[in-house]
Amino acid sequence: MARGTVVQKIIEAHFVEGSRETGKPVAIRIDQTLTQDATGTMAYLELEAMNVPGVKTELSVSYVDHNMMQNGPENRNDHLYLQSVAAAKGVRFSPPGNGICHQVHLERFGVPGKTLIGSDSHTPTGGGIGMMAIGAGGLDVALAMAGKPFRIPYPKVIGVKLTGKLSPWCAAKDVILKLLSILTTKGNVGSVVEYFGPGVATLTVPQRATITNMGAELGVTTSLFPSDESTRVFLKAQDREKDFVPLAADPDAEYDQVIEIRLDEIEPLAACPSSPDNIKSVRELAGTKVGQVLIGSCTNSSYRDLAMVAMTLKGRRVSESVTLSIAPGSRQVLEMLARNGMLADIIASGARILETGCGPCIGQGQSPADDTVSVRTFNRNFAGRTGTKGDQAYLVSPETAVAIALTGEFTDPRTAGIEYPNVVEPEVFEINDNMIQLPGGSGEIVRKRTIGAPPVNQPLPDELDGVVVIKVGDKITTDHIMPAGIHLKHRSNIPVYAKVVFECFNEAGRPTFAERASAVRDSGKAGIIVGRDSYGQGSSREHAAICPMYLGVKVVAALAIERIHSANLVNFGIVPLVFANPADYDSIGENDSLVFHSLRGQLRPGEPVRGELTKADGTKKEIVFNHRLSAEDIRIILAGGMLNL
Amino acid sequence: MARGTVVQKIIEAHFVEGSRETGKPVAIRIDQTLTQDATGTMAYLELEAMNVPGVKTELSVSYVDHNMMQNGPENRNDHLYLQSVAAAKGVRFSPPGNGICHQVHLERFGVPGKTLIGSDSHTPTGGGIGMMAIGAGGLDVALAMAGKPFRIPYPKVIGVKLTGKLSPWCAAKDVILKLLSILTTKGNVGSVVEYFGPGVATLTVPQRATITNMGAELGVTTSLFPSDESTRVFLKAQDREKDFVPLAADPDAEYDQVIEIRLDEIEPLAACPSSPDNIKSVRELAGTKVGQVLIGSCTNSSYRDLAMVAMTLKGRRVSESVTLSIAPGSRQVLEMLARNGMLADIIASGARILETGCGPCIGQGQSPADDTVSVRTFNRNFAGRTGTKGDQAYLVSPETAVAIALTGEFTDPRTAGIEYPNVVEPEVFEINDNMIQLPGGSGEIVRKRTIGAPPVNQPLPDELDGVVVIKVGDKITTDHIMPAGIHLKHRSNIPVYAKVVFECFNEAGRPTFAERASAVRDSGKAGIIVGRDSYGQGSSREHAAICPMYLGVKVVAALAIERIHSANLVNFGIVPLVFANPADYDSIGENDSLVFHSLRGQLRPGEPVRGELTKADGTKKEIVFNHRLSAEDIRIILAGGMLNL
Repeated sequence: MARGTVVQKIIEAHFVEGSRETGKPVAIRIDQTLTQDATGTMAYLELEAMNVPGVKTELSVSYVDHNMMQNGPENRNDHLYLQSVAAAKGVRFSPPGNGICHQVHLERFGVPGKTLIGSDSHTPTGGGIGMMAIGAGGLDVALAMAGKPFRIPYPKVIGVKLTGKLSPWCAAKDVILKLLSILTTKGNVGSVVEYFGPGVATLTVPQRATITNMGAELGVTTSLFPSDESTRVFLKAQDREKDFVPLAADPDAEYDQVIEIRLDEIEPLAACPSSPDNIKSVRELAGTKVGQVLIGSCTNSSYRDLAMVAMTLKGRRVSESVTLSIAPGSRQVLEMLARNGMLADIIASGARILETGCGPCIGQGQSPADDTVSVRTFNRNFAGRTGTKGDQAYLVSPETAVAIALTGEFTDPRTAGIEYPNVVEPEVFEINDNMIQLPGGSGEIVRKRTIGAPPVNQPLPDELDGVVVIKVGDKITTDHIMPAGIHLKHRSNIPVYAKVVFECFNEAGRPTFAERASAVRDSGKAGIIVGRDSYGQGSSREHAAICPMYLGVKVVAALAIERIHSANLVNFGIVPLVFANPADYDSIGENDSLVFHSLRGQLRPGEPVRGELTKADGTKKEIVFNHRLSAEDIRIILAGGMLNL
Repeated sequence: MARGTVVQKIIEAHFVEGSRETGKPVAIRIDQTLTQDATGTMAYLELEAMNVPGVKTELSVSYVDHNMMQNGPENRNDHLYLQSVAAAKGVRFSPPGNGICHQVHLERFGVPGKTLIGSDSHTPTGGGIGMMAIGAGGLDVALAMAGKPFRIPYPKVIGVKLTGKLSPWCAAKDVILKLLSILTTKGNVGSVVEYFGPGVATLTVPQRATITNMGAELGVTTSLFPSDESTRVFLKAQDREKDFVPLAADPDAEYDQVIEIRLDEIEPLAACPSSPDNIKSVRELAGTKVGQVLIGSCTNSSYRDLAMVAMTLKGRRVSESVTLSIAPGSRQVLEMLARNGMLADIIASGARILETGCGPCIGQGQSPADDTVSVRTFNRNFAGRTGTKGDQAYLVSPETAVAIALTGEFTDPRTAGIEYPNVVEPEVFEINDNMIQLPGGSGEIVRKRTIGAPPVNQPLPDELDGVVVIKVGDKITTDHIMPAGIHLKHRSNIPVYAKVVFECFNEAGRPTFAERASAVRDSGKAGIIVGRDSYGQGSSREHAAICPMYLGVKVVAALAIERIHSANLVNFGIVPLVFANPADYDSIGENDSLVFHSLRGQLRPGEPVRGELTKADGTKKEIVFNHRLSAEDIRIILAGGMLNL
């Protein structure tokens, strides 16, 4: 077992109860929370349902960065609810236009050594500044705001030793793409990635944050860097030197696993369609025609990234065969670029300037044309996430993206004949917090007609008479389960949003998943979802649990279920089971009956659960499932979800 | 009859054939055309259907400014079609991000004394520079590109005499709002508004363009200013002094009607929900709480407007109770503000910066919350156009908008305690045409799967056995007929877009208009739409004719039909009729039978048309209709539309 690492020190300093044995649950105190609007409305509705008068964290911030298109009143209704509930409950409010939660939180609120949970899977961005920052479902964040500790499996620590220094045009993004090529997006549940070694000092905080941000794609609990001189410099430039705390692993720290990455051997990489771990070098892809380049997202929209882009574009013209669109990460970044002329250089090159926010990374606009290649500095390229079916989305660094924008095809930026711009990180960032709204005021909560209530579940039945409503394959993401894009605006309205569960699997002439699941529920039976490997990866959206629960789903059975999604299932009273014998996956088909006798009694920590499968032809078979549920998890599930407790 | 006016001189210089008698058709040569993407795809499909190898105008420009959200592949598929067809047909292409067609055209292409038609109702913006600039349906623009003259009724000239000078915080926008309060949005069909008098010299070209732009709401053919020293100064600052031509009415010019507006008596005004002519003073509205302020659109997003906004916002903070969003009108404007620090001042105040383009003015995003007041510098506030049903949208000047943004409530900017900023129009604008793509290349046209073909109509039947599919009230706009917003992306796909004709009148539990019209069509009968006053006002979208035509509509009968829409109906073979006896409107109900015997023979210029109404109870009545159709119009209708000729 690892010892002497940064993550262990932070856990120790926040230890509430539980085990220090790898894989066993440990409860830690949470210092800070963040929410974004797409998951936040439900989180605050849940907080309200708990009757908590005010948050008990050191700091909680509610950001609006996802649903900013406002096609119809729903988005803005959400914002007004969030703004008013934040004021009433002691939460700071960052309105639309102030920036992406992770970027703003890093700039203005993150503190080394503190714990942060956020209702967004990219919350580990804070690991760039030495926080233990974890993505979680909205209900977990609500519980943390209510002062409850947060439970994680005591982590396995993967030490990533960085040596050397990045070469020109080779970027922090390429480091995490490299790590994704090694660790892949699966099999890392329960781990924390901790960076160490002499290469760490060569990376600035924004570069580190890119790496920890996209570490989310590994499926780990979080990623983090030590807090060192670079951290101090960054905090000082943000006028927050007082928040600096040095933090390092012990010299003799031991890791459960060590991976060495030589920064000087890193070359420009790309995640190819349609998974963040489908890595090739940009060299290999050179010459592939590109139709669209997008720069931004919580992964790559820091001042440093966009300054590099501006300096490269200055005096040049974006290729006529692509559109280049840029969404700045925060108001601070945008204001600085507008102040120093760099934004004008970007505009002069023919780039499109999108509103500051998540935008196209979450399928909010900028869908590519059919049959064209889209290159993005984002963190996810799951099939269809762009809003275009059959999309071909590649993930690259801003360095690679800007080279492609200038040529219209995949281009290794080292060969583009452009001198690598010498970006100097600002000694002083533009400090302007006038958009951050402090709590207070009348306490009146604005609740327009589209603000629903969290749906209520029934306690888990003892005899669970289940029907397999859908059987899906590997790597089903929460985007597949609950599509974002044009449906995202219904996040506060479960009966409406539930209609599009598994929309991508709907077929013409066949009832939708929602219709089939509702029919099963209305017949008095329980819906069952069968998945394969890495079920529920990606975004932390708890709607991927809430909406199936609303439709009567009681069990998800898969070969592996990702961490955040599994926790969300528990929180809403759905049993997450893992096939004891993977071959049984092949035995099950849609519409099969799967009955669990005495299920309440069967659910015991570490013990298998047995179900009786009956096929359409009447043949029967026993299927054995495992689970990683703790006693606390089981208590929640038996009650029908956390809100019933 | 008017004589010696600017508009008459331009008509004379472009006279092809026809009459010089007010109200009689005259055909004029067209020098320039413009299209935007929402109407443009159909216009170029029509141009292709005409087998024209290249455009015959002096200049044609294809702009992308409407459908830039790209929620799904449709928008970008359209852009690629437009880009490639422009290159093939000799049309310049202005890609997304370069700006709103009218703003860019004014800056870079408009020439005093030239004729321009554009497939957008706000084409009269060019009147600010002394062009005769007219909004038209896409097919008319395609015909102009093919070298055909454009037919208008020889105009009645309304002379608007401007005297005095605007006071601080009183704006060009208030001038056109004042005129709208006098002339209203109806009864002005066939007129041209021409500005003259000593007040003209006190207005710069961008101010004039605001006035002629929103003149579209009067329902006139166009509005225009003379071309004078201010025009020369503007063109020189755009590095286009060579395009300057002086142009003025003769000293003894006579107008059909004269309205005097004393600029020094103009005060801040607002168009109240839900019509641009529902005018009150901002004073009267003072104190009304506001939730949203939007600045931009082709009416009010010039450098001058946004510089004034920036100077007012500098060092101040937008009220926490509103969101202020700003969509710059062109890349030139945005680049200049980014270059001189004004954009940074806007950003620092807490404003949201939207992409350069039409954006929220056409319901593309930024829909307000339910039950909140939205204040906009735009040109239209038709009910529901914001994307929120039951919206409360007010139209004001940027001066008033910025004052409201700072206070969160209706505020007369003269009383806000802020010194009126002294905006100096630039002596030299930032000239950067690197986004304008010149024609040429392979000639290959990119036609993705969502690019349809213009639907084909049948010749008009002689015995028209009609059924009233819908009966609507006053001031039905083309927005009511063909909603924009989230449906706008289907503009190139008529079978899909036709499903939402009259969507705002759909009722739960009743077949939609599209379903009812299709049923009538499939029964072998003809669909009839009955409207009241000002039917078809607003946007020039020819889809408001094409989609009903696709659904089998053959007749529109109303008390009055607006100019562009009436021309579009003719172009697609639908008969536009006007009740000879307005009281007959009350006799007709939905589902009534209306039969026209020998209709082909009945249609003669200036002669009435008789129909036989049969009510559900079997009672019958003859109804007499008039029309303004020329012999040419009738020829087109008999053929089933222009494309059949």
